[in-house]
Amino acid sequence: MSARVLVVDDIPVNVRLLEAKLSAEYYDVVTASSGAEALEMIKSAPLDIVLLDVMMPEMDGFEVCRRIKAEPATALLPVIMVTALNEQSDRITGLEAGADDFLTKPVRDMALFARLRSLLRVKMLLDELRLREETSRQMNILRDIEKRDELLHGQKVLFVGDQPEEGELIASIFKENSHTEIMTDPGDALAKALVEKYDLVFVSLSLSAGDPLRLCSQLRSNLVTRHVPILVLVEESEPDQITKALELGVNDYIMRPINVSEARARSLTQSCYRRYHDELRGALEKSVDMAFTDGLTGLYNRRYVTRHLASLAQSKGTDDNDTALIMVDIDHFKSVNDIYGHDVGDEVLKEFSKRLQLVVRGQDLASRLGGEEFLIVVTNATVENAERVAERIRNDIASEPISAATPSGHVQVTVSVGVAMPHSTTETPDRQLKRADVALYEAKRGGRDRVVMAA
Amino acid sequence: MSARVLVVDDIPVNVRLLEAKLSAEYYDVVTASSGAEALEMIKSAPLDIVLLDVMMPEMDGFEVCRRIKAEPATALLPVIMVTALNEQSDRITGLEAGADDFLTKPVRDMALFARLRSLLRVKMLLDELRLREETSRQMNILRDIEKRDELLHGQKVLFVGDQPEEGELIASIFKENSHTEIMTDPGDALAKALVEKYDLVFVSLSLSAGDPLRLCSQLRSNLVTRHVPILVLVEESEPDQITKALELGVNDYIMRPINVSEARARSLTQSCYRRYHDELRGALEKSVDMAFTDGLTGLYNRRYVTRHLASLAQSKGTDDNDTALIMVDIDHFKSVNDIYGHDVGDEVLKEFSKRLQLVVRGQDLASRLGGEEFLIVVTNATVENAERVAERIRNDIASEPISAATPSGHVQVTVSVGVAMPHSTTETPDRQLKRADVALYEAKRGGRDRVVMAA
Repeated sequence: MSARVLVVDDIPVNVRLLEAKLSAEYYDVVTASSGAEALEMIKSAPLDIVLLDVMMPEMDGFEVCRRIKAEPATALLPVIMVTALNEQSDRITGLEAGADDFLTKPVRDMALFARLRSLLRVKMLLDELRLREETSRQMNILRDIEKRDELLHGQKVLFVGDQPEEGELIASIFKENSHTEIMTDPGDALAKALVEKYDLVFVSLSLSAGDPLRLCSQLRSNLVTRHVPILVLVEESEPDQITKALELGVNDYIMRPINVSEARARSLTQSCYRRYHDELRGALEKSVDMAFTDGLTGLYNRRYVTRHLASLAQSKGTDDNDTALIMVDIDHFKSVNDIYGHDVGDEVLKEFSKRLQLVVRGQDLASRLGGEEFLIVVTNATVENAERVAERIRNDIASEPISAATPSGHVQVTVSVGVAMPHSTTETPDRQLKRADVALYEAKRGGRDRVVMAA
Repeated sequence: MSARVLVVDDIPVNVRLLEAKLSAEYYDVVTASSGAEALEMIKSAPLDIVLLDVMMPEMDGFEVCRRIKAEPATALLPVIMVTALNEQSDRITGLEAGADDFLTKPVRDMALFARLRSLLRVKMLLDELRLREETSRQMNILRDIEKRDELLHGQKVLFVGDQPEEGELIASIFKENSHTEIMTDPGDALAKALVEKYDLVFVSLSLSAGDPLRLCSQLRSNLVTRHVPILVLVEESEPDQITKALELGVNDYIMRPINVSEARARSLTQSCYRRYHDELRGALEKSVDMAFTDGLTGLYNRRYVTRHLASLAQSKGTDDNDTALIMVDIDHFKSVNDIYGHDVGDEVLKEFSKRLQLVVRGQDLASRLGGEEFLIVVTNATVENAERVAERIRNDIASEPISAATPSGHVQVTVSVGVAMPHSTTETPDRQLKRADVALYEAKRGGRDRVVMAA
């Protein structure tokens, strides 16, 4: 998959070297010769990944990385730091600044391209969920970078490897309320991972009881574990294993001997991506729910029930089952609000909705049209059972007062109900609804607290 | 990226051969020995891709493919047909049955793996957008397979290649209201593609004026063209070019000499994925919008304004700009409904909302809290300009009647307005809102059609 890569280095020959390599693989390359220039470019044009030199005058790579990751708009842009040094302390500084990985010059092509592909895969998925800027703003999705450390609390971690002391080392990364399960058999580990919902999985690639890459692949292929971050533990002498693991969809790797700070920084980065992904999806799911439900009562809203009726009408051709519409209005609801205040009024609406849902069958649908007006859609209905449901709703509310913060501790309300069966097979939902409305009006005129069947 | 692959073939040795190949590349393989068994497995367990033999007793591969693609739940599951024959007519039958590609036995490993990766990439993105089953149902996203052919109408197509007659051939695939732009220079083509919104792009890999793979890569790296389906035209003698193109994110390829039926089937498949992707994203965007806006008036709803006030309160620490709350209620709105009916009432709400939006500045926010009650949030406000905005809202509605289906052709309404400035820097939005509500009540008690500033 092609992508736009920004190469940042103050030494022209380094820039040209990386540019040539990437360009030969058909990446679209842009370049910057200083941290300030890089930050400017990142702000003005969309990029997919940054290759960042560490040693630069004025602003070094660590600082550039920190700034990229501190800005909500660019925090998810993957950053790979490239350095001539291979000091572990540098690597940790970079990773703690939020870098996704660290490559040492001279850069091995295989390692570079495997890493690029692996990071781009994650970015493309996140981009897909991000929708419009405005939409994200509306959803109020926060990325509170400052609170990154909290991501290490309460984690369920799986460690699969032969050396329990490595498992203990990994376990020590995670803070309060975390639990690390240490296992040695990949088959057992897979079975366990499919049941437990782990937040992170660590797999040792020197596992003797089976093929650890197979385990990684199975975790990735299975729907349940597809998105769990996987980090592998590898020997420095086996770079090809890293490449292979990244190709299979492993998220990151930790070299032996394990440095706890490095393992911690890498775990944190993966948890961070994962949480952002979960939050985005959760926010989308929730927005969709909100679009179709009433905030106060949790019933479906008018928008949803309108669509529902339209789709029922469309499928009418195929089966001739009757759909009854039951329209319900709480009697004298305005006085409840006027006498006891809106809070009590809201309580009444909520309690009534709760009771409504108990009366309605699973395949039927209870909705709040607005104010104190409700609509129940009963599918496969006969006149008799539509009337029975309507009568049950009326009786249910009339026979037991609703607890509320009033002087007596409760409110007694009644409801008027209008029921309409379909007039003919060609009647539109709109016309049937109008007839239910007229029946409801008759019920009101007739003295309320009653059910009227439409003609 | 690993994935779960179903291999379907009635000859055990063929199954074992493909299984071994795929398993060595760490794919998770499941197998079936007949069409019926395959359809059963597809129904019961989530899969990522199907490799399907054509010649099988009872139900052949074409029929299995047709059934997979006709079922909404599995229509997006990629299918590669594998056959010993290399008859073009078979290939077209398969592609028209909805197959994503056709591989000839003996299968070249490179071609197989490049194809798998390319199809899986698209599937993963779509999966990401699909959210919960229930959510999709609520959004009412339909996949009307029967109407596939309509996807060839009204298409904007770009053809980049040296042979204009090939361009004409491609153009002939598309139906009414379509337009195919034929270009020879990849640089010009890229520039054009960034401006025009093409539905499909065809690139000849034997282009002489520049590197056609580079053009594909640039189309993929650019945010504007990232999701446009790209099909490349290749010589049969250059299989490595196909592999490379697929790795770069090209969606499909057409072999020379071009067979129009095959080109048409392949274009249709890509248009189909594309449209589904667009619909999913569109539906998500729309749901999010709906969750935060009022269906009748298009103003922000109570849910949104509540969040907005909370986030304003949070940022208060940093800047001490005052936020004024203006609460507006239409006077005697109930009588409008009672006298003229709900339709006229709705007209009044809509027209009032329209006028409200004209009065409010860009950075301010107009919302409908419910019923006939509205809230305007004015940021960076002084007492004077808050009062001025409130007075303008009141005057605007009092000075010009609203056109509506009444005997006189219009309705004259007035509004009462309560305004609250923040009491202190520590006052909660809730308390400030309560004070605006009290001021509104004062306005009502004082005779309506007036503005009252909270104490």
